[in-house]
Amino acid sequence: MVKSIYKGRVITVNIDTVRLPNDTIIDLEIVRHPGASAMVPIKEDGTVILVRQFRHAAGGFIYEIPAGKLHAGEDPKLCAARELEEEIGYRAEHYTLLSSILTAPGFTDEVIHIYKATGLIKTQQRLDQDEVLEVVELPLPEVMTMIHDGRIRDAKTMVGCQLVFFSTLR
Amino acid sequence: MVKSIYKGRVITVNIDTVRLPNDTIIDLEIVRHPGASAMVPIKEDGTVILVRQFRHAAGGFIYEIPAGKLHAGEDPKLCAARELEEEIGYRAEHYTLLSSILTAPGFTDEVIHIYKATGLIKTQQRLDQDEVLEVVELPLPEVMTMIHDGRIRDAKTMVGCQLVFFSTLR
Repeated sequence: MVKSIYKGRVITVNIDTVRLPNDTIIDLEIVRHPGASAMVPIKEDGTVILVRQFRHAAGGFIYEIPAGKLHAGEDPKLCAARELEEEIGYRAEHYTLLSSILTAPGFTDEVIHIYKATGLIKTQQRLDQDEVLEVVELPLPEVMTMIHDGRIRDAKTMVGCQLVFFSTLR
Repeated sequence: MVKSIYKGRVITVNIDTVRLPNDTIIDLEIVRHPGASAMVPIKEDGTVILVRQFRHAAGGFIYEIPAGKLHAGEDPKLCAARELEEEIGYRAEHYTLLSSILTAPGFTDEVIHIYKATGLIKTQQRLDQDEVLEVVELPLPEVMTMIHDGRIRDAKTMVGCQLVFFSTLR
């Protein structure tokens, strides 16, 4: 049974009555989310292109890889390509899926598809009015240092950059 | 301005009217969450203790590091210790904070404090009725393989195990 609490612009909130595998029946709050694509744009010299973006939920500006929500029925790779161009003004020749992560499976079904984007070609940034960000280019080892010292705290960014860094070690 | 949509058992949903740094005024849906602690419990021989847990939002069982929500005002380290014993039946002599991550800053303020837990001593597991999980012990390199091939997709688990793995390389 699903009790609808809220249908919003981005999220839908329901209370689902669920029978667990141990036959316990409980009401669970669940935030339904359309999902998103994110990418680690990396140049041939190993420079990663991040954004420093204002996030109300985080109380200020945070470092992130470029990302954006999926439109209904949209191919995650096309979403990645669209967001890459809109947010940082690049096209990529190659998109390699790194992982499709569950951001917070305790209360939301959000999945973020994270790609490595290579073969970068400069085009034109086109920000939405509600996107407040600056583009920041950093060497991958510096990004790793920032992940380890706590300057980068966004989960998708940490996962994506660590997956790319690890693949350079193999 | 904050419009209250829902106050639930775990989450609170609001619509916040926000002035962005570029002076755009927008309504943002935000899911307030109490936060959580998670830990990478690792034995001296490099074995990591994971759980394979039923998650309704993920549609089934997923691999995760042990974790649990913060009680009001609770020290994240004490929360980690409590959850470690409840979920997998271990106490740890040492907790090292790896990072406090933002799981999904586009729509929630949830922070998960991730610790490395070492000096493990076996005690007694005490699961809640709504926790359906089995304990799975795996060597850290095998965990890394599962992160890379997509068998492990939970963000906090990926971040925590990656941070521990990279610290072994340094």
